[in-house]
This record gives sequence, C-alpha cells and structure tokens, in this order.
Amino acid sequence: MNPCDIIRKKRFGGELNEAEIRAFVDGVVDGSFADYQASALLMAICINGMTDRETLALTLAMAKSGETLDLSDIPGIKADKHSTGGVGDTTSLVLVPLVAACGVKMAKMSGRGLGFTGGTLDKMESIPGMSIDMDVDAFKRQVTDIGCAIIGQTAELAPADKVLYALRDVTATVDCMPLVVSSILSKKLAAGCDVVVLDVKSGSGAIMDTPEKSRKLAEMMVRIGNLSGKRFSALITDMDQPLGNYIGNALEVEEAIDILAGRTQGALKDVALELGAHILRNAGAVGTVPEGIKLLDSKIRSGEGLKKLAEMIAAQGGDPRVCEDTGLLPKAKTLIDIKADRAGYVSSMVTSDIGNAAKLLGAGRERKTDALDLSVGIVMKVRVGDRVKKGDVLCTLHAGEKSDRTGAYNLMKRSITISDEKPEPRPLIQAVVE
Amino acid sequence: MNPCDIIRKKRFGGELNEAEIRAFVDGVVDGSFADYQASALLMAICINGMTDRETLALTLAMAKSGETLDLSDIPGIKADKHSTGGVGDTTSLVLVPLVAACGVKMAKMSGRGLGFTGGTLDKMESIPGMSIDMDVDAFKRQVTDIGCAIIGQTAELAPADKVLYALRDVTATVDCMPLVVSSILSKKLAAGCDVVVLDVKSGSGAIMDTPEKSRKLAEMMVRIGNLSGKRFSALITDMDQPLGNYIGNALEVEEAIDILAGRTQGALKDVALELGAHILRNAGAVGTVPEGIKLLDSKIRSGEGLKKLAEMIAAQGGDPRVCEDTGLLPKAKTLIDIKADRAGYVSSMVTSDIGNAAKLLGAGRERKTDALDLSVGIVMKVRVGDRVKKGDVLCTLHAGEKSDRTGAYNLMKRSITISDEKPEPRPLIQAVVE
Repeated sequence: MNPCDIIRKKRFGGELNEAEIRAFVDGVVDGSFADYQASALLMAICINGMTDRETLALTLAMAKSGETLDLSDIPGIKADKHSTGGVGDTTSLVLVPLVAACGVKMAKMSGRGLGFTGGTLDKMESIPGMSIDMDVDAFKRQVTDIGCAIIGQTAELAPADKVLYALRDVTATVDCMPLVVSSILSKKLAAGCDVVVLDVKSGSGAIMDTPEKSRKLAEMMVRIGNLSGKRFSALITDMDQPLGNYIGNALEVEEAIDILAGRTQGALKDVALELGAHILRNAGAVGTVPEGIKLLDSKIRSGEGLKKLAEMIAAQGGDPRVCEDTGLLPKAKTLIDIKADRAGYVSSMVTSDIGNAAKLLGAGRERKTDALDLSVGIVMKVRVGDRVKKGDVLCTLHAGEKSDRTGAYNLMKRSITISDEKPEPRPLIQAVVE
Repeated sequence: MNPCDIIRKKRFGGELNEAEIRAFVDGVVDGSFADYQASALLMAICINGMTDRETLALTLAMAKSGETLDLSDIPGIKADKHSTGGVGDTTSLVLVPLVAACGVKMAKMSGRGLGFTGGTLDKMESIPGMSIDMDVDAFKRQVTDIGCAIIGQTAELAPADKVLYALRDVTATVDCMPLVVSSILSKKLAAGCDVVVLDVKSGSGAIMDTPEKSRKLAEMMVRIGNLSGKRFSALITDMDQPLGNYIGNALEVEEAIDILAGRTQGALKDVALELGAHILRNAGAVGTVPEGIKLLDSKIRSGEGLKKLAEMIAAQGGDPRVCEDTGLLPKAKTLIDIKADRAGYVSSMVTSDIGNAAKLLGAGRERKTDALDLSVGIVMKVRVGDRVKKGDVLCTLHAGEKSDRTGAYNLMKRSITISDEKPEPRPLIQAVVE
C-alpha cells in the first residue's frame, strides 16, 4: 500500500479503513512510512479529523505495534489507571496500594515523565533502594503475590506511539483529539488490564485547556476504550490549582504516605479515592462508587493501605521504613518562603507556571536525558479561596544546588493572585464519564 | 522563529506573514526547518489554503532562496515561456526561434523533464552535437548575439523549490494551487525575464484535471506573477489528446522542424503561434495577438524561423544540417503499427496513457537517473474526431532495444476509443488569462 495514497485520502477528508491505518502504523515502525510522510498524514488528521471507527482502528493498530502483555494467568480482575498529567498529582501512589488492599489487583507499567515534575517512576525512585526495573515475569509474580506493582515500561509496548509522539511534538500536532486518545489508549490496551480508569485534567495545568475539550477527550477515550472490549471510566478533575500541596518527587511521596497514614486530608485524597472507587465498582468489588469510597477510606483508617505500600516498596527492593518515617526520603538543603504582599483572598493560580517553577528547581525534565534532583520542589501553604494576611507564607520552595532559585521564585510569585473578592469555588470532580 | 509556531498558525487556518514564510523557505534550504516539519506545513497549506498575499510572499521567498539571474545588460525585452507539461508538447522549439526572428529575445533556462517524455533539454540533446550546458555569461552573450538560447539550469535557481518539490512528490501534496503557483513562478522570477507566457494544460494529460482547476491555476499564476512586477499572460490549452502528432524526443524535434519549414500544420503550430503572439504583444513588438500570429506565420513562410533555429543549434555546438535533413536525427529500429479494430469515429484519447506508453518505450523517465532512448516514441496518425475504417493505422510505435513493446502496445490500444458517433469538437485554446 502506497503511503501517498493513504495520505491523499485523508487530505481530502476521506475515512481510512483498517488496512490503511495498519499500513501507516506498521510503516512508521518498520520505516516504510517515512517520518515526513507520517507528519503529513498527522497534520491531515489534525485538520480533517477521524471518525470513531478510524480512532479505534488507530488505537488497536498502535497497541499491536509491539509487545502486548498477557496478564490472564494472574487470578482476578487487573486494573490500571492513567492521568493526563498535572501538578502535584500523585494519585497513583495513594490509590494503587489502597485498591490492592481492597482485593483488586493493580498492575501498573509507567513511562518516565516529561514536563513539570517527574512521573510516578521518578517519584518512586526517591524512596531509598527502590527499583522500578523488573521483567514481565517478576512483575506478574509480584501482582499475583501482593496485589500491586508499579514498574517501568520494560516491554516494548506500542512502539508506534513513541515514533508518532516524537514527531507530533515537533510538528504542532500534539493537541489533536484522536491522536491523544490513540496514544494513551494504545499503551493501556497493550498493558493488558481489564479495567482502566482515566483521570482527565481540566484547567490551567492540563493538556486540554477548556472544560469542553477535556469533556470531549474523556468521552472519546471511554467510547473508544469500551469499543476495544475493556471497561473504561473517566473522571474530569480540576487542575486550576495543584492537586496536592506537595510538588516534586520525594515531596509527593511524602504527601502520599501522609494521606495513607490518615494525617492529611484534601483534594489529592479525594480524587485518589474517587478514582479508586470507580476501579472497585468497575471490577465488581463494590456495587456503587460511594461504597467504594467508604471501603477505601476504611483501609486508610485500618492502616492496611499504608501496609500495602510498604509491602510493595519492600518487594521492589526499597526501604519500607519510609512509610513510618518520611524523614528517610531525600531532603532539599534550602527552604525559601514566598510570602503574601498584601491581605485578601487567594483568587487564582496559574498551575502551569507552578509546574514550570518546580521544573526550574530541578524536579522535572525538559529532555529525556535531563537528570532530576528528587529532593527539590514546592510545598503549597494555601489553596484557592483561602484568606491570607500580608506576610503569610503562600508556599515554600525546596531548592537544591542546581536549582534556578530566582527564576522559580519569580514564576511562583507571579502564579498566585490575591484579590479582595473571594472567588467562586470550583468543583474538584467536574464530571464522570462512563 | 520556531517552526512549530509557524506550522501551528497554518494548522488553525491563520495567514502567515512575510517573516514566517521567509523563515520556512530559508529553513528548508539551511536545514533549520526539518523535512518532517516542512511536510506538515505543506499539508496544512494544502488543506487550509493560502491567500494571494501569502502565495506572493512564498513565491518571492523561493525566488530569492538561491541565485537570481540579472539579464539587464542584454538590450531589449527578454521573454520566457512555461508549460505545465503535456504529451507531444514541443511548443518551445517552435516558438523560441520564431519569436527571436521577430526581434524579441527568448532567454530560456530549463530543467530536465520527469514524466511522459523528456523535457525540452532532452529533446535538444537528440540533435547531434548539441550542448545545453553553458555558463551564465555565455548564455547572456548568445541571447544578445542571436536573440535566443535554451540551456540547462546551470545557476542554482530557487533551490527551495527543489527541496519542497521532492517532499511534495512523496507526501501527496503536489496538486495544491498555491504550491504549484509558487513552484513555477519562483523559478521564472529567478530566471530574470521581463515577459512570461504560461501554457496551462487542461484535460486527461494535464496536472489539473478539470477546466475549472486549470482556469483557477492560470488566473492565480497571472495575478501573482503580475504582483511581482513582471508581465505575465496565460493560455489554457487542450490536453485531451496529444498536442503534436509526434511524441518522443528526436521525434518531437522532427515535428518542430517540419512546422518551421512550413510542411506541417495543426494544433502544435497553432498553440505555439498563439503563445508566441502573446509574447510579442506583451513585449510591445506588435499591437495585438492576431498581428503577432500573422508576423510569426510570415517568419515560417520566409524561412527566417527555421534559419534562427539553425543558428541557435550551431551556437550551441549542434549540427544545424538537421534543419534541412531530419534524417540526421536518431531513428528507432522497429516500427509497430497499431490498427483500428473497427470502423467509426475516434471519439476520445486518454492522453496520460499515451504519455505512459511513450515512457514504456523509453522516451521518458521515472527517476532523475533513468537514461532515455532519444530515438523512441509514438507517431499519431489520427486525431479525435477523425473517421477511420477497420484496419486503418491509428499510430506507429517507434521502439528501441530496451522498450517494453507489449506494455506500450496494450496501453496505446486502450487509450484510443472508436465510436459510432462523431464527438463534439473541443476548442484548442480554451481561455486566455491576462
């Protein structure tokens, strides 16, 4: 099949059939579809769109472009979770052990983070001794034995996505609904779980910048995901301020432990429990989402969630004592408070600026090869709607030797607005799509 | 300027400004705009279009992307001609000496042909001894001295077009109006003539397959060309059958000589004279196009046209005796007649099939590196509308040792339809745009 014929069809708004989409996806992996041909087709898809049938075919072809995990020899329902990415978003470290403590297996294979802070893998590596490298057999054994594992992507899952994402990144074709959907879902399908819950962020720190686009993305992912034969749900959650109060790598692990220990309440816990409850309900472990939240909360109070995290850490070579003493996590050398210039209400935050400030401190990477400082980050002391006096601490920068302190300071300062009027509260869970 | 920002603007239908278009064109030449980025932008241009202002900026930026010829030290008006390319289309070899014989200088720098048959350069090389390699100074001297020259593109004219055309060819972005216009005009502007006449083909052997598209292309080229400060006119001419009756390289030279010698009449002569008359009128040598045709025809009758061709051939090292004896041109070894299966009227021809049959015989190239057999080709014995008896010869294949005779035979056979009804005649000159 000639690449030009496929490109031409989409250029003039035609619907690509399964064979054409397979030729494209296989072609970008084996090189018969050159990168300049792929980018031309990607642009045509961005402008002329894709039907659900095309998006499903693209997702399935990408899922099959490399290895696919067969988890069927692990007894019971296996669940996975995906977030479109935000700031202070460490729901995985909270919900994975909690859901496992409720008897539903969490088998999570993650990629490295590019962006504001590291990904879940980077956060886990801030735990002394912790390994995220594991072969597929060991991964399956651990999920079978203790009910959960979060490891790096060792298998070559959906290699077509890697090629296409690299191209989209440099050709202004990232924010295209069917391409985002197929990129996310292909990896989830290749990872072999039965139930997947998606956390689609909405707001200033999110991939989709308007509630309408976030909703459209969530609906399309659930629709295409369910067409593939798996059980998908999606939540649309607020990202107009950081989700947790701790932003960084070790800092986010600390907040996750605090939540599992019952010491910390708030938005991060609420979203983690809501996501976890959807998994439990979709896996049949509870009848309704409120029952799921109740069950998960009971695992915090009983300490079983924290115990499960400690088991997972131990199984992956880490020091489980961090669960009792977060002082064992790496700590930044220098703390810098940022204070309110005036009295008033915290009326808004620019989440993307906060994320970029964390990156300037060294918590996130610009390029795949950048090294992270796992100890640095930001601790927020206020949330949108809080009343502050002049001189109150708004947040504390945790800086290291290589941090751009001035850059981070100025960006943080700018990102928080204080006004006379109390802002309208925004719902944390904006919508549920199932 | 970031390529992604430029691509994104066009992706969402924005109008690119001059600086953005220059960054794109200079970037494809210096490599700062990668090929996969250029192809994404080309696709966005194909789908979202370009305004006249953008097309003009693109044309000028491409014209300035390499060397530009300064012909101002050649006295008088310098004219050029361009055809969008067809089958049996050797108008240049007829009109260049004729126009020069009328005192208007023809300074033609051509590229090699890709497609059905060779380009003008290949045809000229079938004349024994003829050279089309000449440096710019010698080219200008020849135009000054004898009034005309047709040479290969020695100067690096519009190198951006070379890069972009190669990309368009493999990304289904060839047939896009602003890209076709800027590709053709940029080379004409860089070549430095004052007056340019364009021959836009319409029909089954043409780049634009409908009369509407051919007309739109002609109008856009004349509009953009005149905005650039030169004097442009365009004719839209029929390509629903080969223009001349001789198709090939040496064969087309033979027909051009026959026309200049006054031995052959017909469509090729008519189009060549019409194009030449527009040049004479635009250069101010005559007041009207009919006067121009009359003047050109007088140069055939007086033999001055043929004499001018002989002068040009001699100046470029070729044997001018071919003008008196076409038997000196290379001849194919094998002639194969194709005969009518039935009686009736020749009701239609598929010109592109006829062109491809000539290519199968060895007259045209698929790749730039393919060698041509300059002696081979096809001589048409009928034209659309002719009445034939069963067994009448429709055309004769002139085949060489490497010709795919069976392929060419079958393709030719299929390309000519004979019916009971006499077809409606099509006008040869469909429109004039100025």
